[in-house]
Amino acid sequence: LPDDEARSEGTLGWLHSIARSHVEIAFRHPIKLIANALGSPPVDVIEQAHQAGVPVAALAGSAKHALRHADNGVDIVIAQGHEAGGHTGEIGSMVLWPEICDALAARGGGTAVLAAGGIGTGRQVAAALAVGASGVWMGSAFLTAAEYDLGVRTEEGPSVIQQALLAAGSSDTVRRRIYSGKPARLLKSRWTDAWDEADAPDPLPMPLQNVLVSEAHQRMSRSTDPTAVAMPVGQIVGRMNEIRPAAEIIAELVAGFEEATRRLDTIRGN
Amino acid sequence: LPDDEARSEGTLGWLHSIARSHVEIAFRHPIKLIANALGSPPVDVIEQAHQAGVPVAALAGSAKHALRHADNGVDIVIAQGHEAGGHTGEIGSMVLWPEICDALAARGGGTAVLAAGGIGTGRQVAAALAVGASGVWMGSAFLTAAEYDLGVRTEEGPSVIQQALLAAGSSDTVRRRIYSGKPARLLKSRWTDAWDEADAPDPLPMPLQNVLVSEAHQRMSRSTDPTAVAMPVGQIVGRMNEIRPAAEIIAELVAGFEEATRRLDTIRGN
Repeated sequence: LPDDEARSEGTLGWLHSIARSHVEIAFRHPIKLIANALGSPPVDVIEQAHQAGVPVAALAGSAKHALRHADNGVDIVIAQGHEAGGHTGEIGSMVLWPEICDALAARGGGTAVLAAGGIGTGRQVAAALAVGASGVWMGSAFLTAAEYDLGVRTEEGPSVIQQALLAAGSSDTVRRRIYSGKPARLLKSRWTDAWDEADAPDPLPMPLQNVLVSEAHQRMSRSTDPTAVAMPVGQIVGRMNEIRPAAEIIAELVAGFEEATRRLDTIRGN
Repeated sequence: LPDDEARSEGTLGWLHSIARSHVEIAFRHPIKLIANALGSPPVDVIEQAHQAGVPVAALAGSAKHALRHADNGVDIVIAQGHEAGGHTGEIGSMVLWPEICDALAARGGGTAVLAAGGIGTGRQVAAALAVGASGVWMGSAFLTAAEYDLGVRTEEGPSVIQQALLAAGSSDTVRRRIYSGKPARLLKSRWTDAWDEADAPDPLPMPLQNVLVSEAHQRMSRSTDPTAVAMPVGQIVGRMNEIRPAAEIIAELVAGFEEATRRLDTIRGN
């Protein structure tokens, strides 16, 4: 199964000593959370976090992986649907979110569920909470925050990468193995197009593909051409149409949630 | 774009006189709705429906297609996300639903939006209405209704096709061109596996693929082997785990919607 492939070897990244050195550095600071994108962190890292009073989160693209995270001691499962940016599975958010909520509720143990994949507005937060999530996890929506600082700055203000994101619609992403060897959703670009050519090679398995393309990624992060950036982003990119301070993004989430729940009350006749 | 391909030639089916003869027969009965799955119906069919006082619905996998439907005189756009069964696009429901709602609201004209793709419970109905849809459109969830009557009956009650659906999880669908030539979500089976083999031919373009496989589909609808059925179904199949009367499915939608909106009220602190 594709999402199995995307997740089951997730701890592989931890074989690199660099991942553990990141954890060591993190624990020297007053961190509030450790979150792992591919698979559960190793059990000893989870124990180390718990001893430091830091909860551990892990992303899941299926109920099976959510249950495995809980069995490994993960405190917060991030149920991430197909819409999401970066490494993501096949199951759409509307199906995945309640499925993971129900699977973890049936298991017991109080693992919290955050919904991810396709969230950029307060009414989408309301939708996530309506199907049973305790909260949401957003990544893409903050890439067009005014505070975001990756890519070459332009005179107009937004960086080249942000210009590419502002221009993209919800159909302008592709889910490909070319970023890391595992399926990840990326902004469609001349780079992703080139890998889609009939004569392009197949991506290498993780972790080799990332080794292969990391220099190219570095170069593209300095690109002055918005059609030649390498950027993981979710389908919510279609709604990322202006540069706003992060505080404004958060304020809209709260206001939009309020508005959506009031609309539901009206529909219910209260 | 894949969903462009899925939709833009949608009226092609109407070149067959059989489609128009279906409409003629339908209008001899007190029908309440005409719904078109691929593209808008031809404008003269829409006019004929309106003269008979029958509203016209059409499915859309992108805002662009939703706007085209509205321009063609369609009354109800069914915003169908990637999760859905049958012909479906790339954009997940959580992104697509609000995008189509907003695009049609900005256009004006009062086109209604029904949300489709991934809905099988009342809390998912609440999610759809939270992001702005006026209602929902469900197909897959009724395939395990007690009243559903396709496939060979077994002594235990459910037909062979229903047994296959009951056994499937949310990961047990694939989106392939093998059903019609356009991407459609199907129950994973030995049939879909065979088309995924390295030496399998590419599917033919619509309408030729359907002509090619229609006899095989007929045979598989009489199959006594649940692993060899040809069945379009959405990812919600993972939640279709018992045969229930349609009335029970509807009753749960109402009760689940109530429960979800009450939970949101509690979160909001009302």
